[in-house]
Amino acid sequence: MKLKMMYSFLNSDINIIEKELEETIQPESLLLKQASMHTLQAGGKRIRPVFVLLAGKFGQYDIHVMKNVAVALELIHMASLVHDDVIDDADLRRGQPTVKSKWDNKIAMYTGDFVFALALELMTNIEKSAAHKILANTIVEVTVGEIQQIKDKFRFNQNLRDYLRRIKRKTALLIAVSCQLGAIAAGVDEFFHKKLFRFGYYVGMSYQIIDDILDFTSTEKALGKPSGSDLLQGNITAPALYAMENDVVRAEIEKVHENMAPEEVLKIISLIKQSGAIERSYALSDRYLEKALAVLEELPENKAKKTLRDIAKYIGRRKF
Amino acid sequence: MKLKMMYSFLNSDINIIEKELEETIQPESLLLKQASMHTLQAGGKRIRPVFVLLAGKFGQYDIHVMKNVAVALELIHMASLVHDDVIDDADLRRGQPTVKSKWDNKIAMYTGDFVFALALELMTNIEKSAAHKILANTIVEVTVGEIQQIKDKFRFNQNLRDYLRRIKRKTALLIAVSCQLGAIAAGVDEFFHKKLFRFGYYVGMSYQIIDDILDFTSTEKALGKPSGSDLLQGNITAPALYAMENDVVRAEIEKVHENMAPEEVLKIISLIKQSGAIERSYALSDRYLEKALAVLEELPENKAKKTLRDIAKYIGRRKF
Repeated sequence: MKLKMMYSFLNSDINIIEKELEETIQPESLLLKQASMHTLQAGGKRIRPVFVLLAGKFGQYDIHVMKNVAVALELIHMASLVHDDVIDDADLRRGQPTVKSKWDNKIAMYTGDFVFALALELMTNIEKSAAHKILANTIVEVTVGEIQQIKDKFRFNQNLRDYLRRIKRKTALLIAVSCQLGAIAAGVDEFFHKKLFRFGYYVGMSYQIIDDILDFTSTEKALGKPSGSDLLQGNITAPALYAMENDVVRAEIEKVHENMAPEEVLKIISLIKQSGAIERSYALSDRYLEKALAVLEELPENKAKKTLRDIAKYIGRRKF
Repeated sequence: MKLKMMYSFLNSDINIIEKELEETIQPESLLLKQASMHTLQAGGKRIRPVFVLLAGKFGQYDIHVMKNVAVALELIHMASLVHDDVIDDADLRRGQPTVKSKWDNKIAMYTGDFVFALALELMTNIEKSAAHKILANTIVEVTVGEIQQIKDKFRFNQNLRDYLRRIKRKTALLIAVSCQLGAIAAGVDEFFHKKLFRFGYYVGMSYQIIDDILDFTSTEKALGKPSGSDLLQGNITAPALYAMENDVVRAEIEKVHENMAPEEVLKIISLIKQSGAIERSYALSDRYLEKALAVLEELPENKAKKTLRDIAKYIGRRKF
């Protein structure tokens, strides 16, 4: 089953979200609008809005309240991607030129700032102070993580814990908070919105580990950017970390530098694949997926819960 | 009278703010801490926290509530400076190397993001939704202004209205909001917190115009950066705009480009000074100052009001 089919009962609400996303990004400045729309239209799975809406289904769900949180979370995600592309010197994302490559780093910086500010503006429609505290705290963690990611580049003596902490801040927290804030906006009790946070956190970890695997195993066409990009940029992810347990492979991986010839990189990727690191990374992702599914069991039975289960399994097992 | 003397009765509270500023910036990441502390310790007048506190004196003033707003506004200001220095390729601010010159643009970008996130976290201690709406809306305006500033660089056919709109977003709004949020946090009525907003707005305009004058008239030592920097970076400010009303001077100003030799720039600055543009810029600043003082008259008489009057006059008339 395709991802979109899983939440087809939300289709009309998802359309409202899409419309709201476009309408939000209508600043006076044409340049800013172009740069923001460019990011918006590059697409993406809109997985955070979907989690917001599904979590809201555990409480008093009103799309006109929920949409503020759903759009805000997607905008925060977009803003972080725009800033990320500056850090990664990325020219392509989802097969499209990035803001920083189409314009420049400065425009990308302020486009990110602007999109983020729009998200904050939307969130002020939610008059629940717990939601704001959780979100602000998450954003602090995310920015700390972003600096850590720069420091960890090409640091070959890092371990799996460093990696897990990094992806927590980079991905899992914002997905966890999407679930939690969706629930809070719908008036869900603390006991359950904390469970939804845990669910989102585990799904987010599983999701990012798979993403990091696909960077090694998928094709340029499917990724929308060259495969092996992470390693070449010095982002040491789970497959590389597992592979480095073998001293011979480690010695090769440690040779990686930004200007390495593509055929050299391909050789190293091939070594990593042969080392069993991909399978071990899938097993790591699976452990998070299992935890996500277990937390879900503690929530009341309803259609949203079934959908969250389907999405988690889809995300945690996708091979492309 | 020196600026600090004007609000000496706030000294113990200002010390609390300074301590809180330092304590807030204590992240896990040493690099982030260093970059943030560097910005913090570069100093500055802390004029926004002072406005927050003084505005709070019109209501129920509790320093343990007020400090959240005061520190948040200073952090937002700091964050915007760190991002500004990336845009301006500035190597010096207040005589100190900027984050972007001491580290690099990427670190500067995320340091700004981090400091801004800390500000949001502090603001969540203020459980007044009006405050959050006003702040979020202001931040949207500020980011739109930042993009506009990039677009307006070296655009010699702009007019005074473009300039005024730019400095509104760049400076005046955040000072206006410092006054307004200080008042809101202290429970001041809408009628009066809107007056305080107007006061801050006019003072902010006056302040920035003077700043832009000083860039032409002051010394490198006093500015902490070479004089004439604005023009050289393509920032067309009030003195240049007035001077361009003379076609001969305009023709010279339009020759300015980023790699112009310093002696050439000095010649043009000298032309601008001779054109009467400095005096006209002072008169422009004065008009805003007068408006600020007039709004202030509509507020209840107290020590804070007297101090705001003194500060406004000091700011609007400083010649160095």
